[in-house]
Amino acid sequence: MYGYAMKKDDLRARLRRIEGQVRGLQRMVDEDQYCIDILTQVNSVVAALRAVGLGLLDDHVRHCVRESIEQHEGDQKIEELVAAVARFAGR
Amino acid sequence: MYGYAMKKDDLRARLRRIEGQVRGLQRMVDEDQYCIDILTQVNSVVAALRAVGLGLLDDHVRHCVRESIEQHEGDQKIEELVAAVARFAGR
Amino acid sequence: MYGYAMKKDDLRARLRRIEGQVRGLQRMVDEDQYCIDILTQVNSVVAALRAVGLGLLDDHVRHCVRESIEQHEGDQKIEELVAAVARFAGR
Amino acid sequence: MYGYAMKKDDLRARLRRIEGQVRGLQRMVDEDQYCIDILTQVNSVVAALRAVGLGLLDDHVRHCVRESIEQHEGDQKIEELVAAVARFAGR
Repeated sequence: MYGYAMKKDDLRARLRRIEGQVRGLQRMVDEDQYCIDILTQVNSVVAALRAVGLGLLDDHVRHCVRESIEQHEGDQKIEELVAAVARFAGR
Repeated sequence: MYGYAMKKDDLRARLRRIEGQVRGLQRMVDEDQYCIDILTQVNSVVAALRAVGLGLLDDHVRHCVRESIEQHEGDQKIEELVAAVARFAGR
Repeated sequence: MYGYAMKKDDLRARLRRIEGQVRGLQRMVDEDQYCIDILTQVNSVVAALRAVGLGLLDDHVRHCVRESIEQHEGDQKIEELVAAVARFAGR
Repeated sequence: MYGYAMKKDDLRARLRRIEGQVRGLQRMVDEDQYCIDILTQVNSVVAALRAVGLGLLDDHVRHCVRESIEQHEGDQKIEELVAAVARFAGR
C-alpha cells in the first residue's frame, strides 16, 4: 500500500480531467486555432500534471519515506527521494 | 493559416501519444504501482508536452511573428510572444 | 549596439543587487542559518536572474531579431532565438 | 547544527564562484557583449544556484527531516519540506 492509496479517487479524477484536456488540445489543432492559444492550453496541462506530481511526492514523503525512517531503513528511500525531486524540479 | 499548419499531422500524432501516456498513468494508479515510478512517468508526459509547446513557439516565431514584422506590424506580436515565453518558462 | 543598450543602467543595477544577494547567501551559511531559509533565499536569487534573462530575451526580439527580419536576414536569428528560449525554459 | 554543516566549505566555495559569475555578467554588460551570450551565461548561473539549492534540500532531508521523524516529531518538518520542494520546483 503506497502513500497515495487513500487519495486514489482524487488522483484518478485529476488524471481523467488531464486526459480530457489533452483531447481538447487535439481538437484545437484540428480546428486550426491560434498557436498562442494552444500554447496557453499546453501550459495549463503541464501545470495540472505538475500538481499531480507534487501530490505524489507529498504522499511519498508522508508515508513511504517516513515509515522506512521509523524502521531505521531510510537511507535508500532518502537517496531515491532526492533523485526524484531533482528530476521533478527539472535538473 | 498558422505556423503549425504544415506540421499538423506530427502535432496530432504527438498529442495522441501523450493522451495514451495519460491513460497509462491512470492504469498505474489502478494497479497500485510504486509512487516514484508514477512520478517518473508524470515527468515524461510533462517533457513531451513541453516539447509540443516549444514546437508551437518555434513555428509561431518563424511564421506569425516574422510575417507581422515584415508587414511592419510586429509590435503587438512581439509583446504577445515575450509574454508567452515568460509563461512557458514558468515565470 | 544591442537591444539592451538603452537599459544598461537598469541591467547593471539589477546585477549589482543580485551580487549583493549572493553575498547575503554566503553570510547566511557563515552564520549557520536554517537550511530552508537559505533555500528560500536561493529561490529569490534564481527568480531575480530569470527576470534579467527574460528582459534580455525581450530586448533581443524587439531589436536584433526584428531588424534582421526587416532586412530579410531573419533565418539565423530566429533559429538562434528558439534555441535560446529552449535553454532558458530549461529543456 | 544543520544538515549542511559538514559541507560548509564546499557550499561557501560554490557561492563565491557564483558571486564571481555575477560579476562576470556585469562585465559582459559593460563591454556591450551580445545579448544571447549574456543570456547563456545567466542560464549557467541559474543552473549553479539550483545545484546549490538541491544540495541544501538533500542535506535537509538526510538530517533535519530524518531526525525529527526518528523523534516522532516529523509532521511539521514534512509539511515544510513539501512546501520547499514546491517552491524550488517553481510551482
